[in-house]
Amino acid sequence: MKEFELLKHIYASKQTQNDPRHIGPGDDMAQVLFETQRLLLGVDQLVVGKHVTAQTPPELIGRKAVARSFSDIAAMGGAPVASLMTAALPPNTDDAWSHAVFNGAREVAEQWGGPIVGGDIAATEDAAPAVFTVTAIACAPRCDSIRRNTAVLDDNLYITGTLGNSLAQHHLSFVPRIREAQVLLQAVQIHAMIDVSDGLGQDASHLATAELQLVIDPSLLPLREGASIDGAMSDGEDYELLFCCDETPPMQLLDCPVTKIGRVQRRLSGEPAV
Amino acid sequence: MKEFELLKHIYASKQTQNDPRHIGPGDDMAQVLFETQRLLLGVDQLVVGKHVTAQTPPELIGRKAVARSFSDIAAMGGAPVASLMTAALPPNTDDAWSHAVFNGAREVAEQWGGPIVGGDIAATEDAAPAVFTVTAIACAPRCDSIRRNTAVLDDNLYITGTLGNSLAQHHLSFVPRIREAQVLLQAVQIHAMIDVSDGLGQDASHLATAELQLVIDPSLLPLREGASIDGAMSDGEDYELLFCCDETPPMQLLDCPVTKIGRVQRRLSGEPAV
Repeated sequence: MKEFELLKHIYASKQTQNDPRHIGPGDDMAQVLFETQRLLLGVDQLVVGKHVTAQTPPELIGRKAVARSFSDIAAMGGAPVASLMTAALPPNTDDAWSHAVFNGAREVAEQWGGPIVGGDIAATEDAAPAVFTVTAIACAPRCDSIRRNTAVLDDNLYITGTLGNSLAQHHLSFVPRIREAQVLLQAVQIHAMIDVSDGLGQDASHLATAELQLVIDPSLLPLREGASIDGAMSDGEDYELLFCCDETPPMQLLDCPVTKIGRVQRRLSGEPAV
Repeated sequence: MKEFELLKHIYASKQTQNDPRHIGPGDDMAQVLFETQRLLLGVDQLVVGKHVTAQTPPELIGRKAVARSFSDIAAMGGAPVASLMTAALPPNTDDAWSHAVFNGAREVAEQWGGPIVGGDIAATEDAAPAVFTVTAIACAPRCDSIRRNTAVLDDNLYITGTLGNSLAQHHLSFVPRIREAQVLLQAVQIHAMIDVSDGLGQDASHLATAELQLVIDPSLLPLREGASIDGAMSDGEDYELLFCCDETPPMQLLDCPVTKIGRVQRRLSGEPAV
């Protein structure tokens, strides 16, 4: 499954490529112009057996489906407006189970300000895993949305919260850093930001450019309980915010610590992204 | 699979129930307020093996996935803004096939004014059918969005195009009636509208209320080539617009004929919806 290559086939519309108010493929969310307002749009899938197990409590499956999508809102600095949810379910799905999934989703979507306003249910086949999608619709921040590829030379690199060992518990209980991002944007100008879902190493590479590399000091990584430095770099499912700026940000956002973990440097030909 | 019951568990947010500018569950799309603008949101799934076969040309699978979602935009009287697409694919999916699906989707989404601006790909299991979702984001019409449950006593009932025998060809080639709906809304005031996807009989029942029933004259139904009257009532996949109004609408919208097929009458206790 070559996800990035396939995704290129999804997007690449000429209508959106030339308008600077549009943000197209490759960022945490797309941004489109709606009348005079900037609208953030994104969609994520949750596959039972991959992102959660069949034994995961169903309310937490629904919660995670919403949380994953809403973490992208945080990464753009946006505010949730609404959401849509679909389920593709094998015919032998237990009704009480799917009700519980939706209840878990609905509760957090509403709590986080983006209530579920629509959806669709489809039947698949008995051997198929249940697949849920959550579409997140959000309002862009008053400043520009925070992109991935706009880091500046000599920026410092910061991370919210702690990293690693997410599968022990964190991936089912995390709260998307939407409010923390909003507090952060009010305090300083952020040059680039992403949420860490695939592992710090991999996601940090999305902030690098052809001219800039990210140098991370492993000894500075804030470790979650039970996490190793290697795990902090590669475990994934942290849903923390990784951001670049040249001002000193608040080192505490609400209840969440912020840690400086590296720097943005000039990238010489042949050097790695991170 | 009790779709309507499950859907009730998806929605029903207190945040959206009490604001008249919001349209919640049970209509063709949801409407939310975005800043001062009204935004239409909807999502539909397409399951290979159910809505299309594995032998359907992949470009037409992508096309149909978009067309189904955009037909709901027509039914609300809206104008497409953007769309999002996901694919949940078994690991043995042929890359050329999925590229062709996305190419087919991208081409029509752009052509119809709602380019695909984001998406997600997930791997499922070899025995699972491919499932695609398309989220449609649209601008509500300047008049109010056209709801389902707002027909008026003594309205006439009209249908665009022809009905029945859709699976012969129409379901893979139809163009959502977005432009026809816009021409219609400029000409007359529409009281209620829906797109016919599950069959005229079933979808017409969504326009009925506790006090109003729809009386359809089967001899008036405009039949697609090869269609029977029974087929016109129940085949589904027509994606034509069924609407109620008390003015005389244009009987031709662009290239599409409009046919009067019935009336809205008072519904006595115990009488059927249609």
